[in-house]
Amino acid sequence: MAAAVRVFREATVAFTAAAGRRTLVSLPPGAAAGRGGRGSRRAALAAAGALGGLGLWLWRRQAVMVASEEDEEEKELRQRFMAPPVSGLQELRRRRRELRSRMELLIMETQAEVCRALAALDPGAAFAVDTWERKEGGGGISCVLQDGEVFEKAGVNVSVVFGQLSEDAARQMRSRGKSLKAKDGKLPFCAMGVSSVIHPKNPHVPTMHFNYRYFEIEEADGTKQWWFGGGTDLTPTYLNEEDAVHFHKTLKEACDKHDLKLYPKYKKWCDDYFFIKHRGERRGIGGIFFDDVDSPSKEEVFQFVKSCAKAVVPCYIPIVKRHCHDSFTPEEKLWQQLRRGRYVEFNLVYDRGTKFGLLTPGSRIESILMSLPLTARWEYMHTPPESSKEAEILEVLRNPKDWVR
Amino acid sequence: MAAAVRVFREATVAFTAAAGRRTLVSLPPGAAAGRGGRGSRRAALAAAGALGGLGLWLWRRQAVMVASEEDEEEKELRQRFMAPPVSGLQELRRRRRELRSRMELLIMETQAEVCRALAALDPGAAFAVDTWERKEGGGGISCVLQDGEVFEKAGVNVSVVFGQLSEDAARQMRSRGKSLKAKDGKLPFCAMGVSSVIHPKNPHVPTMHFNYRYFEIEEADGTKQWWFGGGTDLTPTYLNEEDAVHFHKTLKEACDKHDLKLYPKYKKWCDDYFFIKHRGERRGIGGIFFDDVDSPSKEEVFQFVKSCAKAVVPCYIPIVKRHCHDSFTPEEKLWQQLRRGRYVEFNLVYDRGTKFGLLTPGSRIESILMSLPLTARWEYMHTPPESSKEAEILEVLRNPKDWVR
Repeated sequence: MAAAVRVFREATVAFTAAAGRRTLVSLPPGAAAGRGGRGSRRAALAAAGALGGLGLWLWRRQAVMVASEEDEEEKELRQRFMAPPVSGLQELRRRRRELRSRMELLIMETQAEVCRALAALDPGAAFAVDTWERKEGGGGISCVLQDGEVFEKAGVNVSVVFGQLSEDAARQMRSRGKSLKAKDGKLPFCAMGVSSVIHPKNPHVPTMHFNYRYFEIEEADGTKQWWFGGGTDLTPTYLNEEDAVHFHKTLKEACDKHDLKLYPKYKKWCDDYFFIKHRGERRGIGGIFFDDVDSPSKEEVFQFVKSCAKAVVPCYIPIVKRHCHDSFTPEEKLWQQLRRGRYVEFNLVYDRGTKFGLLTPGSRIESILMSLPLTARWEYMHTPPESSKEAEILEVLRNPKDWVR
Repeated sequence: MAAAVRVFREATVAFTAAAGRRTLVSLPPGAAAGRGGRGSRRAALAAAGALGGLGLWLWRRQAVMVASEEDEEEKELRQRFMAPPVSGLQELRRRRRELRSRMELLIMETQAEVCRALAALDPGAAFAVDTWERKEGGGGISCVLQDGEVFEKAGVNVSVVFGQLSEDAARQMRSRGKSLKAKDGKLPFCAMGVSSVIHPKNPHVPTMHFNYRYFEIEEADGTKQWWFGGGTDLTPTYLNEEDAVHFHKTLKEACDKHDLKLYPKYKKWCDDYFFIKHRGERRGIGGIFFDDVDSPSKEEVFQFVKSCAKAVVPCYIPIVKRHCHDSFTPEEKLWQQLRRGRYVEFNLVYDRGTKFGLLTPGSRIESILMSLPLTARWEYMHTPPESSKEAEILEVLRNPKDWVR
């Protein structure tokens, strides 16, 4: 697995390219670009990218002033993404009408958008960006901010993998209702997604998770099956009704643009999915969750997924801003740590993505497990007192509420 | 689930009996015994039990001086066990020649022996003792010391459960090579064991786990299948060769008394079982592990298991004594916390007992998950420097060593 790594810290850009190891170097912006070698050039572009923060449209206006095509590509990379896309920008351009290209651009843009929004709230913290390749096909970009002022651990991961689906993996698909006809036991596939977990330090700022993914699989007769999955959900340590309503309302608005039936259906799916069965509790206060969605049409589902991905920053960032400077007691921090323990329980025992990743040879374990909190706690027989703030959130985790109608 | 609870802290005994809730009350020794009600009397006996600390043989000598049979029973309970046995002492006496009675006494004695040895090293800490009943049949006794001076979390759990094995559970058995013929899809079974995880505070004191269990299952034609399983293993944060050799040597001596082939076989089984596949590391430096053992004879396997159970205190307690006052740095504590994270990963993702427990309705979750550490940590892409003490233990976890020959 090859890796290109950099650290993005305020105006100081640091990176180096190395095979299978991380090395962090501090350089002033621009200094890196003068170095030779494709790896380091790509990393330099990626490193500079996060500094732009001006997004796609500004780049388009600037592009007319750029002389060579290479400069143009570099500029685009720098401004739109955290690192060069796995499939390469030229290849994405060549097949720009194909849904998998549009989805790859969407997940790359979502990653950059979320990382920039988080970095803006935690200016002293470093976002490490690792690009990695998968031997069997494809690769990914992992962006992780750790032990900042505001965030304990924030990871935003993109992966675009392709190759042949094993019979085991295919069987998993089939059990979820997909009938797939393999040729010689092999199924060419392509899977891509953006996935993120944000664990803040302050117990009054909730943890947030989102994931949007697309899957394509080719059957023996050449027909392609495809489907989307995803969701965004919130895990507060303490209940704040105003935050809960804002979060759900923003998601509902994103859904309602497409079909009024979507929010209630996916809200319930979320409550059902994030259930820690052995505790009789949900992981958090929900949001939306869906999987295996392949109707009404590829274009319509893509537009819906795009709306959801665009809702991540507006549904979460205002909540972080509102509470990241709230004062808290050691007891509140302790309760947060116990809830972090439940988060670990859900992710390691039940989460399908995590389980699938851990059992799949060639997975990048560090990217899968970046969802785990920096710290967690388990106390034997911990039970909060009745009518406490701790009991209040437990009640909602045991009996999910409707936050918007 | 009914629960009788007490706290054992030096000469102060605290307990109360309540259904499904814990209430901790501090009473001088003896005060509790005057209260009425079977629940509180049983709990009082249990509470007093841990104070005796003199063991079985002293009780036998004293017994001749005891007038009524009830007093005698109370005395025995008090001195031998942490709480009254699940099957009741009279019942165990009535069928004292049966192996399941002898095994139940062994696991009860092991629990008390280990708890007393730990409590002696951490005199300021409280051992909470919960007795619980299983609706479907049987119950257990959980002893947990939490946030002491020496131990971060130490749990010693006994469970004795019986009833009908579901088809699902039976299928799990079958996949492990047991051919079982059910009558109307049901298999009467009895399972019992003692299970323990000790997480010390000082990073120079290793975590220790042991578990000894016995299983009986009745087939359609009335024949009984039975087998034993178990093991003891060590998880150090830092490698100390002297400790590793002492631990393995003590276990090897216990095995060698029965058959010279056992230690090498079960040492390898341990290294294979405690493998965190997605990390390419073992959980610790091993020990012994075995499962589904049903030869050469029930009596011989029981005697072997007894030797192993009796080896727990001598293989571990000297290591705790040697290092519990060692000085350590914040960096060493941090490395311990990262290794605790790996412990959680193994237990929640791979451990068969934990997984089976979490998925079995009616399990006592708090007893199953008492194996998790009080605190744990996950850092993205943490890699210790080459030639560091942290890299030294990782090397041994990746490539298990032979500690004794």
